[in-house]
Amino acid sequence: MFRKLMTFDEAKKAIDIKFKPVFLGDEEAVLLEANNRVLSEDVVSSLDIPPFNRSTVDGYAVKAQDTFGADENKPTALRIVGSVAVGEAPNVALGKGEAIEIVTGAVIPQGADAVAMVEDTECEDAELLIYSAITVGENVMKKGSDIQKGAVVLRKGQILGSSEIGILAALGLTKIKVLKIPIIAVLSTGGEVTELGRPLPPGKIYDINAYSISTAIIEAGGKPVYFGVVPDDKTALAKSMKMAVASADMVITSGGVSVGPKDYTPQIVDSLGKPGIVVYGIAVKPGKPTTVGFVGEKPIFSLPGHPTSALLIFYLLARPLILRLAGRPETTMKMIKAFAGARMFSAKGRRTYVMVKLEFDKDCRLIAEPVETGASGAISTLAKSDGFVEIAENEQFIDVNQEVSITLFRSSTAIV
Amino acid sequence: MFRKLMTFDEAKKAIDIKFKPVFLGDEEAVLLEANNRVLSEDVVSSLDIPPFNRSTVDGYAVKAQDTFGADENKPTALRIVGSVAVGEAPNVALGKGEAIEIVTGAVIPQGADAVAMVEDTECEDAELLIYSAITVGENVMKKGSDIQKGAVVLRKGQILGSSEIGILAALGLTKIKVLKIPIIAVLSTGGEVTELGRPLPPGKIYDINAYSISTAIIEAGGKPVYFGVVPDDKTALAKSMKMAVASADMVITSGGVSVGPKDYTPQIVDSLGKPGIVVYGIAVKPGKPTTVGFVGEKPIFSLPGHPTSALLIFYLLARPLILRLAGRPETTMKMIKAFAGARMFSAKGRRTYVMVKLEFDKDCRLIAEPVETGASGAISTLAKSDGFVEIAENEQFIDVNQEVSITLFRSSTAIV
Repeated sequence: MFRKLMTFDEAKKAIDIKFKPVFLGDEEAVLLEANNRVLSEDVVSSLDIPPFNRSTVDGYAVKAQDTFGADENKPTALRIVGSVAVGEAPNVALGKGEAIEIVTGAVIPQGADAVAMVEDTECEDAELLIYSAITVGENVMKKGSDIQKGAVVLRKGQILGSSEIGILAALGLTKIKVLKIPIIAVLSTGGEVTELGRPLPPGKIYDINAYSISTAIIEAGGKPVYFGVVPDDKTALAKSMKMAVASADMVITSGGVSVGPKDYTPQIVDSLGKPGIVVYGIAVKPGKPTTVGFVGEKPIFSLPGHPTSALLIFYLLARPLILRLAGRPETTMKMIKAFAGARMFSAKGRRTYVMVKLEFDKDCRLIAEPVETGASGAISTLAKSDGFVEIAENEQFIDVNQEVSITLFRSSTAIV
Repeated sequence: MFRKLMTFDEAKKAIDIKFKPVFLGDEEAVLLEANNRVLSEDVVSSLDIPPFNRSTVDGYAVKAQDTFGADENKPTALRIVGSVAVGEAPNVALGKGEAIEIVTGAVIPQGADAVAMVEDTECEDAELLIYSAITVGENVMKKGSDIQKGAVVLRKGQILGSSEIGILAALGLTKIKVLKIPIIAVLSTGGEVTELGRPLPPGKIYDINAYSISTAIIEAGGKPVYFGVVPDDKTALAKSMKMAVASADMVITSGGVSVGPKDYTPQIVDSLGKPGIVVYGIAVKPGKPTTVGFVGEKPIFSLPGHPTSALLIFYLLARPLILRLAGRPETTMKMIKAFAGARMFSAKGRRTYVMVKLEFDKDCRLIAEPVETGASGAISTLAKSDGFVEIAENEQFIDVNQEVSITLFRSSTAIV
């Protein structure tokens, strides 16, 4: 079957039309393990914060009215009837003409409506002299003034970081409902690919893609589940794919999508359910043999076997879907401006991605040096590339010294 | 004892002089769990990659010399003596005048030194006609041409991401030596603070700082160990601090660093060992009562009790040390430019940090709106702030509409 290659934008649109980010359900997370998880429901405060009227200074709890008219020449004299320490319930109430010693953070005792700062007072035995009038509520933080009981403090969809975990702790919550992490099945195909952990048989290479892509899945907020290297046999591959679709929220295979007789993956995807393959090859370089399908609402990406191509297409097309399944904002990867260190050519009629390494030149300009990505650089390309430059379909090349935008593979590289 | 407050820069310098990032040792990590870990040794390839001479095309393995002089009018005729599939050791060697069918990725059989692309050949029964001369090595990726056995492929100190994990997989490594994660002891003090997971007693508030700071420790590449809320009692606090220093690589306490009679923390730090307290209060707002000490090479931070102040000072002073202990580059936090939404005043003579919330105005300009951080906003400040603006000691205020740099608390916020 021959179909014209889609452009990159057509492929992205075809995927977006079919993709429905389903709700994967929620689960409970222990607060200290909830870092970087996504809230699955609004959090309503079950407490007033502060939970009591609280002194914001060290001093004396008083009735403000008792101090009206006091000044430096005519202090108010009050009788000290007790003290409140921090963290304790006051064991004494305040009457007219009385004062109770109090420290920052302690509970304002019943009957008091303000606190005189210790600096504005003088104390002789049980007598307190106050040298300035105090207004009602002065130096008192009212119960619930920070957060009211019943108020929504965090919204569904919030990614939890240090501030949010602190807020949840303030409410006394030790567990919290978060979105489930999408399960992404990872399959490798290709007769030359073999699993790690045993000596390399003749003619074989180790499975690289399962590991690089699984790591990229974790970084995108998904949980990779490795289905291993599937034998290059239609029945075995169909069986593995079926299991993967049944148990995961998305499936990513790599290898086995060229046009050889053994490249069954698209046929199998079509056979597993509707709508089947929606992208059958893309006019990009590298990554042309990529196919994308859906079985029901579950996306199935079949990436090329070349490690750099597979990882690139993962970042461009699969990562945004994992972010959305995980309930995360579809943030772009980190980008940076640099100058092209050499002329970079595009592949005719295909959107071209050139892997680059970043270096500073002697004038401290950031230079993007193209990294060889051909058949001879499968692994060293991965090691050397900091990111990639995009050349549009209608451009022939990027010229040396031209300013370019680099999309970075890592959020921190040694150089930037 | 009275000592003049250090400026922020003096405090940072005093810490840097005393801080020696010790080597915490290494440990083995399973490859798929090594994401975001730091390599503790150079990785040397124990393999040639590719591990064999490999065909980069579908075609026929030949002796290049047999094809010399061939052209469209005078093809070379060779005898096909076998075939090699991908992932297999060839079971046949090539003699003069012979060809062996081969596919992309398969092993070049003994005796062959080039591959004729299938497009440049014609095949009749066991006879192959080649219509163009082939050079030695054409369409062959030589053993070790991507990575040579014995080559250093990744350097000590490398942070492992998708590319690096892919490279390690290519070498067949299932485990890898990584730096140990620094253990950071987290203690809370303050008579009003109580642990989560039980009803709130009268006069108490839940421990917020242990949770927000522990999360920030995880984000910085450390492992928090919670020592709980330590009773406001000198003996108990000294005992906890001693245990914390003995078992962790750094200690962070919060609360109990004001100038009340119960603020023993600095005295205890001084008593635990040399050099003791090196920063006794800093001319910043908020965060003035911060103290920093060392027992041997172990840093001890005593942060204020106010949640926003504690987290801010953690980010400014403790986070860089955790990054260095973890063997990570001391990257700054993410920053962004915005316009001040209101005039923001500094505290006289103190470097001032104003918490801000980011919003777009009707002209789509990014505006930094100051968030109230006073005593009345302990928790709501955490909830509302996206980051902070710094006002230097010698500046009085930042004016409305002035362009400012915002340091972001989160690497992704809803708005940017």
